[in-house]
Order: sequence, then C-alpha cells, then structure tokens
Amino acid sequence: MTTHAISPIADHLRLPAGPVDLAAIETDAAPGFAGDKADGKATLLAMGEELADLQERLWAQRTAGSERRVLLVLQGMDTSGKGGVLRHTIGLVDPQGVRITSFKAPTEEERSHDFLWRIEKGLPAAGYLGVFDRSHYEDVLIARVRGFADPEEIERRYGAINDFEARLADQGFSIIKCMLHISPEEQKERLAARLADPEKHWKYNPGDLDERARWADYREAYEIALERTNTDAAPWHVVPSDKKWFRNLAIGQLLLDTLRGLDLTWPEADFDVAAEQERLAAEAPVR
Amino acid sequence: MTTHAISPIADHLRLPAGPVDLAAIETDAAPGFAGDKADGKATLLAMGEELADLQERLWAQRTAGSERRVLLVLQGMDTSGKGGVLRHTIGLVDPQGVRITSFKAPTEEERSHDFLWRIEKGLPAAGYLGVFDRSHYEDVLIARVRGFADPEEIERRYGAINDFEARLADQGFSIIKCMLHISPEEQKERLAARLADPEKHWKYNPGDLDERARWADYREAYEIALERTNTDAAPWHVVPSDKKWFRNLAIGQLLLDTLRGLDLTWPEADFDVAAEQERLAAEAPVR
Repeated sequence: MTTHAISPIADHLRLPAGPVDLAAIETDAAPGFAGDKADGKATLLAMGEELADLQERLWAQRTAGSERRVLLVLQGMDTSGKGGVLRHTIGLVDPQGVRITSFKAPTEEERSHDFLWRIEKGLPAAGYLGVFDRSHYEDVLIARVRGFADPEEIERRYGAINDFEARLADQGFSIIKCMLHISPEEQKERLAARLADPEKHWKYNPGDLDERARWADYREAYEIALERTNTDAAPWHVVPSDKKWFRNLAIGQLLLDTLRGLDLTWPEADFDVAAEQERLAAEAPVR
Repeated sequence: MTTHAISPIADHLRLPAGPVDLAAIETDAAPGFAGDKADGKATLLAMGEELADLQERLWAQRTAGSERRVLLVLQGMDTSGKGGVLRHTIGLVDPQGVRITSFKAPTEEERSHDFLWRIEKGLPAAGYLGVFDRSHYEDVLIARVRGFADPEEIERRYGAINDFEARLADQGFSIIKCMLHISPEEQKERLAARLADPEKHWKYNPGDLDERARWADYREAYEIALERTNTDAAPWHVVPSDKKWFRNLAIGQLLLDTLRGLDLTWPEADFDVAAEQERLAAEAPVR
C-alpha cells in the first residue's frame, strides 16, 4: 500500500488513540467540509463516477488473483442512519460488487458458536466492497449494556476483535469502521417522525424506547469499545450524523480515500491480445 | 395477487407457449417502445423512484410477516449484458434490499450435490429482490452443449426445474426469467471492443471464442430449455439485447410490472401508535 493524501473530512473523523469522550464530539457538525447541504449532496453525487470506477478496478483485480477487498463497518444507535448510508452512498456503486450483511439478534445456532462465527460467514470475498449493517461490535455494546455476556467474556472480546481484524488486514482487507454519532435529541425527533407517518410505522418497535432509556449506558459501552479496538489495522471514525447529508458524504469520502490508497490499476491481460484478435477476425462464420 | 395492467414492453417480451425459434426473434428491436435511445435512458431513470418505493414496501412487508420476494433470473450468451443490467437497472433500487448471486462453474463440493443444491442456497430471503447472474439454467445449457451431464439427466432437469420453480412460486416468489438475446455479430463486436481496450482485457477469456464457436448448439439448447420451462408460475421473457439501452429499460419495466402487481401496501402498526407517542413525549430526560 502506498501513502496517499487523506481528505480533510477523513482527517477530522479519524478517532485519535486514547480515551474517548463522545459528549465532546459534536453530532451536528460538518468537520472538514465548508459547504452547505446542497453542496454536500452535490459533492457526494460527483464522487459517484470515481467511486464506481475504483470499485470496478477492485473487482477486476480479483480476476488477476488479488485478495484485496474493502469492509465498511457501520455502527450507531437506532435511527442514526445506517440504512440511509446504504441507500445514498453505497447506492452510488455497482451493486454487483457490493455485499451487505445485516446482523440482527443472533439465532439459536449463532449463539451456540463464538460471537465471531457468524461474522466470519458474512465477510466479503476478494474484490468486493462489503458493508456490515451492525457487526461484531454488537457483542460488546448491547451485550455489555444488557448483560447478555458476563464481564470477563466482554473483556475477552475486545482482544479477540483486534486479533480478528488484524488477520483480516493481513488477508487483504481494508477496514473502515464508522460510528454514526447522533444526539439523543435528534433520535427523539426521528422516532417522533416515524410515529407520525403511517408509511414509517414498520420501522418502529416499542423496544426502541427501552433501548433509548439506556442512552448513557450505550455511550459508555461505545466509548470503551472505540478506545479498545481503535487500531492501525482497523481504525475507528466517529461520523457526526445529525446532518444526514454530511453523514452520507463523509462515508463516501472515507470510501474514496480508501480506494484511492489501494493504487488500483487495471489487470494486465494474461493472454496474447494480438493472437486473440486474429482468432476473432479469422473465425469460421458463426450463426 | 390481483390482476394488473401489463405494459406494452412486457406484453411483447413474454414468450408464448410452444416451440421456440430464436432466429425469428429480432435482437436489435425495441418492441413496445416508441422512443429512441435518449428516450429509453430517460424512461428508465424516471422509473427509479417508483421502483425504489415499491421495493421498500416489499422490504417493509417482510417485517409484517410477508413471504413475498422477487427473483430475477438473467441468462444469456457472453457479452449479452447481464452485468450492465445489474449496474443500470438493479442499481436504481436500494442495495439493502437486493441480493445478487452469480453462478460460476460449480465447485467440487457443488458438483457432489444435485444441481439445485447451490441454487437453493442462493435464493433471496423474504422481502428481497434477488437477482441470479446465470442460474440453474446453466445446467441445461452449457451442460447440454458440452456434455457435462448425460441426456437422461438433462431430460430429468427440465422437470426438476419446473417443480422447483413452482414450489418457489407457492412460497411467495415472483419469478421473472429473462433471456438476453443478442446476435452473433453483436457479440463479435463486443468481444473485439474488449480486446481493443486494455481496461477491458480482464473481462476477456480465450475460452470465450471456443464457446462462441458453439453458437448454434447454444441456440438449440436455449430453444429447448425455454420451451420446456416456460410455465405460468415462472414465465420466460426474451429480451432483445443488441441495444443496451432497450435491454436495461425492458428489464426495469418487467420489474416494475411485477412489483405493481403485488399490491404492496405499507404494513400497519402492530403497536398502539398514540400510546408510543405519549411514552416518547413523557420520557425522563435522556442524555
């Protein structure tokens, strides 16, 4: 991997090493971007062509034996906009090269394995842009807040996650971890909007309010998880997400920076091009 | 399922029952569409909003226990444009609700099972728009042409496919099968274009010309397969595909007709909306 320019947005979003204080990170800012909402939307759309081109190169390199792939991990409280990122940012690239894995409450079979078992199964193959909508971090977030695992097991998991992600990086994964950071006030507005619109009732679950009441516990669980798993192989980004347009733009920019950094050249032909051109020109009539 | 209007395009593309003569079906036509290339591209883009809305309803219904899902099967000779359909047509909808499965040459494990084993594993779950890039039809197409299975086994497979697809339809699948129909002359141009452009060399394989030399055998295999598996539960459409814009538009229209025919209402709330609004308004401060 060569060094490459980091965009101002990515530079602001990259979480520094050390203890994390989420309350000190603004949720409604647009760090590293000087424009307004209209500019932000236009900037994201303008990225589409380069994103799609680089993703096709990643995909093409797979045919030449490359192990490279990208894994975008999306974590955040309910309504923080994981679905919006999928629609507006991931929707910019060719769906053929995308693999989205959504992690819900684990099934009985999944619970009977190590927490990373189902994660391993959801990993993108070489050449793909994989996206995790929730992830193995649920196993140190909701699992910690709700006591689904005991403290020693939670403690073990931070190290297991770092080892797992380091192995992925060694295998050719570029890992981009994003925490979609919203304020509790913003979540309240979004939940109220869902309740007010019959076309959005299906997105609402009464249990959402029970989770919301544990906001402070979740913040603490996030702060610990972010600090403990913020590695060079798989760094965390805290994405201010009260502004939906900035959230979508910022993650587009992180993807673009990552793909640019891979120096994705088109694979060279592993056959004799001129000979094939002659064969095609000289073929017997085909009908 | 209620009756619904079939668009002129779908009406033209629907393969009638009985023997199939592919040579009699034009590859460069745009049946059912009066406009030109620019009109066709604009018409497809204009479909995007309704397609995305209907797909979100399909997705939402899943949360209310619906088993409905859509399976688009794409078959065609090399260069017929399966990838282009994925990019330009499937790319119009939210990637979160899409599952694309590409079937390559079967692995050793896959070959040790019935031909439908890997197909079953690639099926979309309820609520999804699934797309098969190649499919179980390879097992009566290349398998027949290249003799990968003996004639009795090929014969058995037509019936097995019909039974399989009928079961899927009973389970809530809407199946749209499309044969992307190109002329051998058009394929020659597209192969030559790949050879002429170093950025497209990765798409070319010298084996492509060997398959191309069997064009007449493939046509015959397609004609038999189309006739034998053209059922009401899972009808075939032959999509003239020399014009890429018409191919993309036509498949968009088939998808739109199918989704419209499902009467996709938004699911009703299974909770007391007013009570939840009161809970949210009356909650203790969250921070």
